Amino acid sequence: MGLLQDIQKDVSLKQLDIKQLNSLSEEIRGEIIDVVKNNGGHLSANLGMVETTLALHYTLDLPKDKLVFDVGHQCYTHKLLSGRYDKFKTIRQSGGLSGFPEKDESPYDTFTTGHAGTSIASGIGMCQARDLLGEDYCVAVVVGDGSFSNGLNMEALSSSSTKPKNFIVILNDNGMSISKNKTGLYKYISKTTTGNGYIRGKKVIRRAFGRWVAKILGKFRDFLKRIFNRNNYFEIFGFKYVGVIDGNNVKEMTKTLKRVREACKEKAVLLHVKTVKGKGFAEAEEKSDAYHGVGKNFDLSPCSFSSKLGKSLEGIMQKDKRVVAVTAAMTDGTGLSIIEKTFPERFFDVGIAEEYAVTASAGMAVSGLKPVVALYSTFLQRAYDQVMHDVCLQNLPVVFCVDRAGFNGADGKTHQGLFDISLLSHLPNMTLLCPTSESDVEDALNYALSLNSPVAIRYPKSVNKLDVQMPSFKDGKWVQISQGDELSVICVGGRTLALALDFAKESGKNIQIIVARKIKPLDTECLQTIACDKVFTIEENAIEGGFGQKVASYFAEHKPNVKVTCFGATDKFIAHGTVEEQMQTCGLTVQNLIEKSNQ
Amino acid sequence: MGLLQDIQKDVSLKQLDIKQLNSLSEEIRGEIIDVVKNNGGHLSANLGMVETTLALHYTLDLPKDKLVFDVGHQCYTHKLLSGRYDKFKTIRQSGGLSGFPEKDESPYDTFTTGHAGTSIASGIGMCQARDLLGEDYCVAVVVGDGSFSNGLNMEALSSSSTKPKNFIVILNDNGMSISKNKTGLYKYISKTTTGNGYIRGKKVIRRAFGRWVAKILGKFRDFLKRIFNRNNYFEIFGFKYVGVIDGNNVKEMTKTLKRVREACKEKAVLLHVKTVKGKGFAEAEEKSDAYHGVGKNFDLSPCSFSSKLGKSLEGIMQKDKRVVAVTAAMTDGTGLSIIEKTFPERFFDVGIAEEYAVTASAGMAVSGLKPVVALYSTFLQRAYDQVMHDVCLQNLPVVFCVDRAGFNGADGKTHQGLFDISLLSHLPNMTLLCPTSESDVEDALNYALSLNSPVAIRYPKSVNKLDVQMPSFKDGKWVQISQGDELSVICVGGRTLALALDFAKESGKNIQIIVARKIKPLDTECLQTIACDKVFTIEENAIEGGFGQKVASYFAEHKPNVKVTCFGATDKFIAHGTVEEQMQTCGLTVQNLIEKSNQ
Repeated sequence: MGLLQDIQKDVSLKQLDIKQLNSLSEEIRGEIIDVVKNNGGHLSANLGMVETTLALHYTLDLPKDKLVFDVGHQCYTHKLLSGRYDKFKTIRQSGGLSGFPEKDESPYDTFTTGHAGTSIASGIGMCQARDLLGEDYCVAVVVGDGSFSNGLNMEALSSSSTKPKNFIVILNDNGMSISKNKTGLYKYISKTTTGNGYIRGKKVIRRAFGRWVAKILGKFRDFLKRIFNRNNYFEIFGFKYVGVIDGNNVKEMTKTLKRVREACKEKAVLLHVKTVKGKGFAEAEEKSDAYHGVGKNFDLSPCSFSSKLGKSLEGIMQKDKRVVAVTAAMTDGTGLSIIEKTFPERFFDVGIAEEYAVTASAGMAVSGLKPVVALYSTFLQRAYDQVMHDVCLQNLPVVFCVDRAGFNGADGKTHQGLFDISLLSHLPNMTLLCPTSESDVEDALNYALSLNSPVAIRYPKSVNKLDVQMPSFKDGKWVQISQGDELSVICVGGRTLALALDFAKESGKNIQIIVARKIKPLDTECLQTIACDKVFTIEENAIEGGFGQKVASYFAEHKPNVKVTCFGATDKFIAHGTVEEQMQTCGLTVQNLIEKSNQ
Repeated sequence: MGLLQDIQKDVSLKQLDIKQLNSLSEEIRGEIIDVVKNNGGHLSANLGMVETTLALHYTLDLPKDKLVFDVGHQCYTHKLLSGRYDKFKTIRQSGGLSGFPEKDESPYDTFTTGHAGTSIASGIGMCQARDLLGEDYCVAVVVGDGSFSNGLNMEALSSSSTKPKNFIVILNDNGMSISKNKTGLYKYISKTTTGNGYIRGKKVIRRAFGRWVAKILGKFRDFLKRIFNRNNYFEIFGFKYVGVIDGNNVKEMTKTLKRVREACKEKAVLLHVKTVKGKGFAEAEEKSDAYHGVGKNFDLSPCSFSSKLGKSLEGIMQKDKRVVAVTAAMTDGTGLSIIEKTFPERFFDVGIAEEYAVTASAGMAVSGLKPVVALYSTFLQRAYDQVMHDVCLQNLPVVFCVDRAGFNGADGKTHQGLFDISLLSHLPNMTLLCPTSESDVEDALNYALSLNSPVAIRYPKSVNKLDVQMPSFKDGKWVQISQGDELSVICVGGRTLALALDFAKESGKNIQIIVARKIKPLDTECLQTIACDKVFTIEENAIEGGFGQKVASYFAEHKPNVKVTCFGATDKFIAHGTVEEQMQTCGLTVQNLIEKSNQ
C-alpha cells in the first residue's frame, strides 16, 4: 500500500505522474475489495469510479472546491483520498466511517447523500449561495445514469435554461441504475453526443448521396455540428456538453477535467463519462447488479422476507391475472427477480422513480389491475404524496410491500426504515400490516389483496428464528403470546417480539405479551381486554407518530389510569452499526426494559 | 344557454357543426365566468381550455375513452359537457360538485387530481392495464406546460423509450405554471417543433451560403427533417410529435384530434397546443396569474398570513444578507411577490418542483445562506423526503413557511393542509411552530431564523379576529389564556383558539385554555403544570399522528389518570365546503365539545 499511505502523509497527490496515478488506482481498488470483503458494502459502483474520483481529486482544489456524490454509494475512493485511509477499515461499523458521504465526518464531504437524485439540485444551490456571497470555488457533482433520470434531478436539470458558472456535472454512465438502465432518457443519453451525432450525420449523407457528395459537403461540418449542438439535451438546459470520455482511464480523465475546469468558468459543463460498474473484479463486472451491495465475504444471499415475497407473489399471480408487480430499481433487493422471469409482461421496474412507480400503479388500479408495489421503506418516502393523493384519496387497491422496514444496520442514517409507520398510519383508507416472521408474508399478502383498498405491509430485512409458535396471520388480528397481570407488552415485528420474550424471561415478571400484526386500524377489541395497569409498546419505528403513541392516546382517552411507555427509535437519526447496536442506541434492550418496568 | 342545455338532453354534441361548436364554447365561457363570480374558483385555466376540451369531447368516445386532467383546475368545461350542467352552480360548495376531477363524482372523471404531475404516469398505467386486460379504448391526458416539468411527469415521460399505443398527451402550452413559466424545459418546448426546426435550418443555410445555395440544397429537406425529428425531445421518448396547434380554435382542434386519434393507434402522440390562459375575459388574460384562483366576485385580495409573511420577510432580508426566499410556482399565493420585486436576485421561484425547491435550499444552506421556503401545506407533501433526507438529516438552517395549513374550504380533498403536523413532527432536528394570528408571523420567523436548524412555521389562509390579547410570540412557549380546574383545552392555531373561547363561554364550565405555538418540541414544563384531570386538544390536522396524540402519550406515560381527548381532522379525506362546514364534519364545534366534556 505504498502510494496510498504516502499521500496520507507527506506526498501530495498532485505531484504524482500518470504512471503513479495508475498504480495508485490499483492500490485503491485492492483496498476497496479487501475492506468490502471484510465489512460488506457497495462494491460495483465503487470499483467503477476509482479512476474518475482519482482524477477529480487530482484536478480540483478540494475541499475548497465542492464535490457532491449522488446517492453516495460510490464515495469509497473519495474517502481514501481525503485523509480517511487509516479509518477506512472501520467503514459501515459502529463508530467508524459511514458508507456514504457524511457532512459531519469530513470537510471533504460537502453534502450528505444516500438517496438518489439530490446532486444537481444541491449543486445548483451551492453555486447560487457561492455567487450571492461573492465566493469563488467550483462545484462538481457526480451522478450515475440511473439517478440522472430521477424526477428530482430532472427538475434541477430543467429548472432553468441557464446554469451557474463554475459548475460541473459528471454523468457517470455505466448503463445501470442498480439493475440495468432501461429508461428512455438513458437511451437518449447513450445516443446524444456531438461526436456521434456528427458521425451519424456524415453516414446519413454518404448513404443518401454517395462518397463524392459527402466529400464536397465537407464544408457542412460546422453547420451539422451546430444543429446537433443546438438539439443536444444538455445544451438546451444550459450546459456545455463534453463527452464521451473513458472514466476508467486516469490519463484521459485528468486531461479532460483540466480542460473542463477551465471551460466551466464560462459555462456550466456536463461531462459524460463511461465507466464499467464492478471494474477490475471479474464477478462484479459480470453481475454488477448482484454485486451492487454485498454482505461480508461478498455474501449475495437474498433477504429472507424479500425472497418469501417473490415466491408468494409468484403463486398469487398464477391464480389472479389482475395482480401485477412494480418496483423502482429494486428488483433483486425486493425479491422480484423471480417475477421478472415468470411474468415479464406483468412486471414493471421503472428505474429510480418511486413517484412514477406509485402513480402509474394508481393508474393501473383505476383500470382494473391490482398492483403490488415493492419498495424499501426509506425510498417509499420519496413517494409519500403519491401514496396519499393518487392511491389513498381514491381508495385504490394498491398493495405496498415496504421492505427493509426498521433498523438497517451498516447502511446507516440515510437507509433506516424508521418512519414508515409515522408516514402511512395517518393516511385515510390505508391499512398497515406488519408480519412477524417470513411465514406471515404470504397470508399478509393474500389478506391485503382481499381488502380491495390501499394496504402497506412492512417488514425488515430479516429476523432471527423465534422460539415461539405464532398462529397463522389470517386478518392480522392481534395475538396474545403469553398471559400476565403485571405488565402488558405490545410489540410490532419479529425483532421486538424476540426482545419481549427475552425481557419476560429475564425479568421474572408476570408479563402479558401481545403481537400487533395490524398496525392500522388498531385492534381496539384487544386493547379493551388488557387488564394490566402498565403497558409497554415496542416497535422498529420512530416513537414520534409511531404505533406506540396511537396505543398511548387510545388508553389516555378510553382507559386512563393505565401507564403507557413507548419504546422505539428515539428522536434522532440513527447512524450505521449492527442492528443490535442500533437497537441498543434506542434503549431497545432487555436491561432497559427491566429498568423501566421497575420505575 | 340554448345549446349547453340541449346537449344535456336530446342533442348529441357530435351532431353539432363548427359554427354551433363555436357558439357553444361562448356559452360555456359565459357560464364559467358567472359561476366563478358566484362561487369563486379557478378562472384563467378554465377559460383557456374551453375549445380544447370541447374538441376532446367531440372527438373522443367518452367515457369509454379515458380523459385525465393534470392538476384538474381546468376541468370545468369537461364537467359542463359530461351531464353536470344542472349541478354546475353548486361547484366547490358543500354537497355540490368538486372543483377538480373526482372519480366518485362521474364516470367521466377517470382519475381524481389536484396536485400537479400525475397525468402522464397515471395515463401510462391505465394503458398498461387496458393492454394486459385486452380491452380497447384510448387514454388522453391534458397537461399544462407548468406541470409538464414537474419531476413526476418527467419520470413518466422518460420512463421508457416506447410508449403505449392509443395514448395521447395534450401539452397545453400557455406559458404559465401558476405564474410565468421560466423553466429550461419550457424554453425547449416552446422551441422544439419539427416545423420551426426545419424553418430555422433553412434560414441558417441561407445566412451561411446565400439563397442560391439554399435552393440547390432543396434536396436536403428530408435529411434536415430527419435530423430534427430524431432530436425532438418527445420523439426520443416514444411519442409522435404533433404541433403547434391553436388550442382555442375549435375547428383546428377537432380536425387535428381526429387525425391524432387515428395516428395514436400506431404510436403514442404528443399533441402540442397553444392556448391563452384567461381567454375571453380581458382582466384574466392580462393578469392570468392573479386570476388563476379567485374568490367570490373575483376577489383577488391576498391572504392575510401570506401578505404578513411577505412584509416580514422583506424587513428581515434588508437586515440579513444571508436570507433568501424560495417557492415553487406560488409567488403570489405565499405573499412573496414583494420579495420578487425588492430582491430579485435573492428570490427563487423554481416552478412546480417542490422537491427541487427543498434540495436546492439545502444546497444553499450548507453553503452559508438561510433559505426561507414558502409552500402550501398540501404541496410540501411532495417534498417530504427532501425535507427529511436533505434538510433535517444534515440539521440545516432552512425555514419552511407552510401556508394554507389546516382546513382549506372550497378546494376540497386534494388541497387540505391536514397532514403537515403528522409529517413534520416525527422528523429529528425539526422545530414546528404554529402562529395563532398574523401578528405572530414576524416573531415566529425571527425566532425560526435564530435557531440555525430546520424549522417549519404552519399557518392557515386566515383566521377571524380573536377577542383575546395574545402576548408576543417570543420563543413560542405555550400560553395560558384562561385559568380553570374542570378541564384544560390545549389548542393549536387561531381558529381552534376561537373555538375554545366560545366553548368556554357557552359551556359555563371552569376551563383552562392553553395555546400551543410550538408544536415540536412539546412544552413539557407547561404540560407538567396542568392540574385538571381532563384535557382536550384541538388542532387543524389529522388526529392520527397529530399534536394531540403526542400530548396524550405524554400524559399516558408521565401523568396517567388524566383523560385526554383529541379533536382534529377525523380519519377520512375532507371534501369541499366552507371551513366552518369542514370543521363541523370533524366535530370541531362548540356543541360537540360540550357533549364530550359532559361524558
